[in-house]
Amino acid sequence: MTADDLVSLRRDLHRKPEPAWREFYTTARIVAELESRLGDDLAALHVGPDAIAGDQRMAVPDDAELTHWYERARETGVDEAVLERLEGGYTGAVAVLERGEGPTVGLRVDIDALPRPESDDPAHWPVAEGFRSEHEGAMHACGHDAHATIGIGVLEAVADSDFRGTLKVFFQPAEEVVGGGKSMAESEHIRDIDALLAVHIGLDHPTGEVVAGIDGFLAVSHLEAEFTGESAHAGGHPEQGRNAVQAMATAVQNLYAIPRHNDGTTRVNAGVVEGGSAANVIPDEARIVAEVRGETTELMEYMKRRTRRVLRSAAEMHDCEVEIETGAEAPSATSDAELVSIVADVAGDTAGIERVLERDELGGSEDATFLMKEVQENGGTACYVGVGTDHPGGHHTATFDVDEASIGHGIDVLAGAIERISRRHT
Amino acid sequence: MTADDLVSLRRDLHRKPEPAWREFYTTARIVAELESRLGDDLAALHVGPDAIAGDQRMAVPDDAELTHWYERARETGVDEAVLERLEGGYTGAVAVLERGEGPTVGLRVDIDALPRPESDDPAHWPVAEGFRSEHEGAMHACGHDAHATIGIGVLEAVADSDFRGTLKVFFQPAEEVVGGGKSMAESEHIRDIDALLAVHIGLDHPTGEVVAGIDGFLAVSHLEAEFTGESAHAGGHPEQGRNAVQAMATAVQNLYAIPRHNDGTTRVNAGVVEGGSAANVIPDEARIVAEVRGETTELMEYMKRRTRRVLRSAAEMHDCEVEIETGAEAPSATSDAELVSIVADVAGDTAGIERVLERDELGGSEDATFLMKEVQENGGTACYVGVGTDHPGGHHTATFDVDEASIGHGIDVLAGAIERISRRHT
Amino acid sequence: MTADDLVSLRRDLHRKPEPAWREFYTTARIVAELESRLGDDLAALHVGPDAIAGDQRMAVPDDAELTHWYERARETGVDEAVLERLEGGYTGAVAVLERGEGPTVGLRVDIDALPRPESDDPAHWPVAEGFRSEHEGAMHACGHDAHATIGIGVLEAVADSDFRGTLKVFFQPAEEVVGGGKSMAESEHIRDIDALLAVHIGLDHPTGEVVAGIDGFLAVSHLEAEFTGESAHAGGHPEQGRNAVQAMATAVQNLYAIPRHNDGTTRVNAGVVEGGSAANVIPDEARIVAEVRGETTELMEYMKRRTRRVLRSAAEMHDCEVEIETGAEAPSATSDAELVSIVADVAGDTAGIERVLERDELGGSEDATFLMKEVQENGGTACYVGVGTDHPGGHHTATFDVDEASIGHGIDVLAGAIERISRRHT
Amino acid sequence: MTADDLVSLRRDLHRKPEPAWREFYTTARIVAELESRLGDDLAALHVGPDAIAGDQRMAVPDDAELTHWYERARETGVDEAVLERLEGGYTGAVAVLERGEGPTVGLRVDIDALPRPESDDPAHWPVAEGFRSEHEGAMHACGHDAHATIGIGVLEAVADSDFRGTLKVFFQPAEEVVGGGKSMAESEHIRDIDALLAVHIGLDHPTGEVVAGIDGFLAVSHLEAEFTGESAHAGGHPEQGRNAVQAMATAVQNLYAIPRHNDGTTRVNAGVVEGGSAANVIPDEARIVAEVRGETTELMEYMKRRTRRVLRSAAEMHDCEVEIETGAEAPSATSDAELVSIVADVAGDTAGIERVLERDELGGSEDATFLMKEVQENGGTACYVGVGTDHPGGHHTATFDVDEASIGHGIDVLAGAIERISRRHT
Repeated sequence: MTADDLVSLRRDLHRKPEPAWREFYTTARIVAELESRLGDDLAALHVGPDAIAGDQRMAVPDDAELTHWYERARETGVDEAVLERLEGGYTGAVAVLERGEGPTVGLRVDIDALPRPESDDPAHWPVAEGFRSEHEGAMHACGHDAHATIGIGVLEAVADSDFRGTLKVFFQPAEEVVGGGKSMAESEHIRDIDALLAVHIGLDHPTGEVVAGIDGFLAVSHLEAEFTGESAHAGGHPEQGRNAVQAMATAVQNLYAIPRHNDGTTRVNAGVVEGGSAANVIPDEARIVAEVRGETTELMEYMKRRTRRVLRSAAEMHDCEVEIETGAEAPSATSDAELVSIVADVAGDTAGIERVLERDELGGSEDATFLMKEVQENGGTACYVGVGTDHPGGHHTATFDVDEASIGHGIDVLAGAIERISRRHT
Repeated sequence: MTADDLVSLRRDLHRKPEPAWREFYTTARIVAELESRLGDDLAALHVGPDAIAGDQRMAVPDDAELTHWYERARETGVDEAVLERLEGGYTGAVAVLERGEGPTVGLRVDIDALPRPESDDPAHWPVAEGFRSEHEGAMHACGHDAHATIGIGVLEAVADSDFRGTLKVFFQPAEEVVGGGKSMAESEHIRDIDALLAVHIGLDHPTGEVVAGIDGFLAVSHLEAEFTGESAHAGGHPEQGRNAVQAMATAVQNLYAIPRHNDGTTRVNAGVVEGGSAANVIPDEARIVAEVRGETTELMEYMKRRTRRVLRSAAEMHDCEVEIETGAEAPSATSDAELVSIVADVAGDTAGIERVLERDELGGSEDATFLMKEVQENGGTACYVGVGTDHPGGHHTATFDVDEASIGHGIDVLAGAIERISRRHT
Repeated sequence: MTADDLVSLRRDLHRKPEPAWREFYTTARIVAELESRLGDDLAALHVGPDAIAGDQRMAVPDDAELTHWYERARETGVDEAVLERLEGGYTGAVAVLERGEGPTVGLRVDIDALPRPESDDPAHWPVAEGFRSEHEGAMHACGHDAHATIGIGVLEAVADSDFRGTLKVFFQPAEEVVGGGKSMAESEHIRDIDALLAVHIGLDHPTGEVVAGIDGFLAVSHLEAEFTGESAHAGGHPEQGRNAVQAMATAVQNLYAIPRHNDGTTRVNAGVVEGGSAANVIPDEARIVAEVRGETTELMEYMKRRTRRVLRSAAEMHDCEVEIETGAEAPSATSDAELVSIVADVAGDTAGIERVLERDELGGSEDATFLMKEVQENGGTACYVGVGTDHPGGHHTATFDVDEASIGHGIDVLAGAIERISRRHT
Repeated sequence: MTADDLVSLRRDLHRKPEPAWREFYTTARIVAELESRLGDDLAALHVGPDAIAGDQRMAVPDDAELTHWYERARETGVDEAVLERLEGGYTGAVAVLERGEGPTVGLRVDIDALPRPESDDPAHWPVAEGFRSEHEGAMHACGHDAHATIGIGVLEAVADSDFRGTLKVFFQPAEEVVGGGKSMAESEHIRDIDALLAVHIGLDHPTGEVVAGIDGFLAVSHLEAEFTGESAHAGGHPEQGRNAVQAMATAVQNLYAIPRHNDGTTRVNAGVVEGGSAANVIPDEARIVAEVRGETTELMEYMKRRTRRVLRSAAEMHDCEVEIETGAEAPSATSDAELVSIVADVAGDTAGIERVLERDELGGSEDATFLMKEVQENGGTACYVGVGTDHPGGHHTATFDVDEASIGHGIDVLAGAIERISRRHT
């Protein structure tokens, strides 16, 4: 792929951001690209239900939502045959390249977008260059458009190299809701992986910097709390209401106030809240979508316990009921020294890379950890690589964007490392 | 109209509840009914922009919302010619009956529904009888379906009576958002009214009871607060966020805690709240739709002042901005003794009415007060009549329903009172 | 008593404000004054345990507190024989005047102060005139210094009049904590009262105004909540704490936010809060002293129920325990028309009274209601009289003060009314 | 000192716990003990104002409080001549031992107690053995009674050893309020220190364990916020109040909810709160005594900024004023490898020490850091040593206690290390 090809592909994906399990266009586009570029070179291309363990998907949206995005993808004119295999929210793909004897190496890239609006500031690069999100309320605000592009680029580069062995690239859906990692970790494709690489762009590292091995993944757990009270006329009979919004507000205030823990980092966020129906009705329903994190699983569990206590008591205080549903979760994980050292070596030799950090802490969560742990438990090794990119806004914000030069860096470092891994094995 | 006609009309309206300024089907149905029942008997039938002062409408929803409901109405097959006149949210109608010399009497009925879901409990009468709301998230939870039916019934009954003078029935939109009263009060149709009646069903009075004159309307003011902060990755950089949901929750807690006032009744409700985009993003936007009320305008202003202080400080506390938009407002009003006495007399003689209360307090708000005050300022008199109806759930709740027998009671009492008013003038 | 005597007595009491059940100096001073002014004219002077039903006292402070104030009183050099009878917080007195055949009339005045500091603004009259409170943290901020003075003045005036019958003046302790009314209502002295008057100065009425009969007493209930959690080092192990101050703060926020009630006035106040021991210790103890009120006993009970729910859930939320102790309570009461009319007549004829209001609402609470209800249940009548006084600051605030001219008004109106009552009976 | 002497001295100090700047008895007892045990062996014994830089004291209580504790100390019969030198809260001492040529070594021990009640559970060792705190509301809940004892023991042990050089033991007051460290760091006595040791017992390490060098001190800042509103009668005119307790509660809720920071550990605690005067008065005053901490000074400053914002906005929300006074602060610090290694070696050879950890994190704050930084800036080295002790309750809790065996361990390790330091220099 030329640099222009990379930019053009990434921008096309950026223009059509699709949140978790709704990556219909994105998957179809990846499949089309792989078929056109690699065609018969691929030993296999597993799509949708064939790529993932469908019953292990977490945080799948409801049918109406899936249908809405499915139709939207269909209207773009993508290959209907591919699209049909994704129906019901079975998105993602696994592409397999076989090059004779040698290790089985995996590369995991994630492909979903965030359900948040993109900046329309004329100074925002995607606006200036005309590839801002076409879908109001959705945005590639974490660089997964670049990740998908890197996945394709790596396949092509490795296909053209002296690589010996098998390469599987996992185009993983639903990372942002911590919903897709497990379904790929439980698929059959992961079982024979000897060495797994995963990649993330940015993370506050500038273009030209590479972190060979990222650690410090926070264990994360999502949850949703539904408060149910009783409505009443807000003017006529406020005392007859059981106010779900008061319960929710009390909970939000106290969730953020859960005591910090001496054993390490914790996090909590009430990321989405809503409640009530009209100004003159005492609200009988309210909802919190939240997540908690911990530097260890124990810390995450501490936060979960405290969160439940806050939610239940806030409901009780306002005579409401609350149903708490635990959503997706992801564990912690560690990058193996052996692979870290290979990546560091390769990165040191890669054009455009000016600075290589051996290790850094993520300070966030990632469901790549499901794949990493699976591979490690099977006796393989895993490594999470950071590829620096200048990004004007922070991750998950409206002005996030990537320096497109770093897409090439990612391909070079990862393809180089994959080749090096195959050589070491022989 | 036969009792069966009344029930059938009311149920049809109940099945298609339309919130404020979206009463497209409702208005068209009223017009169709009036034309078929009264036809040339009507001196005039003003529809949509001809019925109201369009520039005085308050709390009109956005175009997308209007279009959505407009299309929905169109699909029912109602008269497109009528529908087109309502386009853009100009709903409502004023029907005029002329019967020679005599006073000009007005009757105001409201016709909008609430944006809240209806119970699907099999024991809920509209479910049992198959006329539950067809529009998820909307419901006639305050009896305006019955009010509209009463308006038509009164016109027919007066047309068949010895009434001398002019009768105008105001089918008013958008009462629930306090948005339509002013636009009818400022229309030309109100100016020559000598005596105005308004009616509400229920209000915790059982079937067979009538309140001749209701007072104690709370002045009301709606407002909407938009909090804007800054998003950040909830795991990676919580400290970089400026959390609009924390600001909102702090505000909600403190809004309900605004001190009670010794001068009289006050109310506050954060009826709708929402905020945030995803579990793993620090929320940069949140919203509160609220209302405050006061037994007097001064008390309402006290609540508005305190509300603004709470909202601004809550934003400031979390380093957010807040924009506060004042929405619809309605004043207080009083029923005139002269009309109260006529209604009480008539009700005492009406079959089915077992108990007549001279006066009662509403303890809620109503934008009929705009019309009442306008008439009173022009030297006329006004009276707000309560017609009891057994209602299983409270007003504005999911199980609200009316005892259909009370529709006839309303027609009899109001038509009787209108005739009596005309006689008194001659 | 001359006007100078009245002023001088009132100022002496003002200088030595004593809160509930600590009226040692005050009681002794009243006794001394009565003995010197009326001496053998009095048929009886019941003091301390003889004046009240001691086992019905509510909200009595602990021994240390009682001893502290007792000693303070002793140091002023008051009559030790009287003082000893008050030991243990049995304060108050009942003075009896007998003048032959006739009705038994009661007058109740309260004598306690508030536990709050007095303004030291040079413009504050007691500061300017040198009679500001000598006891830091205590203040006659509700005019009970004037009430006690009025009680003595009325006794003297009636003694010099043509009054026929028996007059009992109840110098009641502990009104501010709603703690003394019941103990006087349950004493033997109340049983034979035919007509009871009670008096309050001020209440937002200016000098020269009299309210003949006050109604609208709010039923009131005091409570104290003790939260117990677990302390921990705030730096080292915040997660090991169970934070009683967080529980308390959550409770306070939600107490004030208990929904207003459509049936009438409600009130709530977290009047005293405290918690914690040091900046670096997670607080394991916190306390709220609160009161709730309601226009009716039912409304007070509603507030109590909601208050308990809030307190319990706030404790639960922070894994704390809470003990809730119900404190003093007082019912509602009504002034009888017969007495109201007598007072209004007398007031209309009294020099210095420019305006007489038949009725007004208190909008507060008063444990005079215990005595009023007791008398009414025994077949007598009762009336609560308001005597206007210009007061710069509101009741219970640091700058409250009375216009001393109104003390004479109070004596004239009450003595006049008492005489009139006696005449009516004969 | 025999083991019995140590226990007896420690228990005596435990029985008379004195909080910051009130260590009158404690200082006098230390002085008496030093004089009787070492007498003329001491080159100097600086007491009170001679031991500290008096104008650098932080968080000194008011005169009334100082006088109260001073009198209490006087009543125990301690040497009045010593006591008088401490008047006004100039507590603490520095004892100097000179043994010829050699380095100047410092040892810092803190001597103050906490203002919190001690458990009265019969199972609590000080209760069982009869040395529970005699001062209600004060307690040696952090082991400073043991520290003071260790300081004396070390002086005696070093005096009996082959040590060559000068030893200064700093008996530091007011550590718990972070108030005394600076005043000792700024005294002349610190300037010539070549090597400084500080010691803490416990810290979740069991008896028999030693941590040679503790790091991870959190920078800390204390603050006090005074909210001022306006009082009003809670029943009569709640709307006229400006409620300082509502402001305080809103602040507390939001202080604990200040976002966690990705750069490292932060802490916040509203350790003492109070407000209001009576149940029936809207509170016009409230107070929060709080502390914030950060792994770095920047993180502490972040917490301070956020705290101020919360406090100011909470006041504003309830129309109150707030005055925020910054209290004591302490920086972070690091133990020097050279000394850590000496302590580790010595500890490894000390009887009773079964396990030596090279390094551990404190996760709390300490104003020993002022002395450590001062010494390090002057070119010396510093090391903070942890001496394990079984403690049933956590630090700062009601059931904290030390295993008295560890007092001997502390003396042995520290005296040994001091000797070793002197040998290394020669």
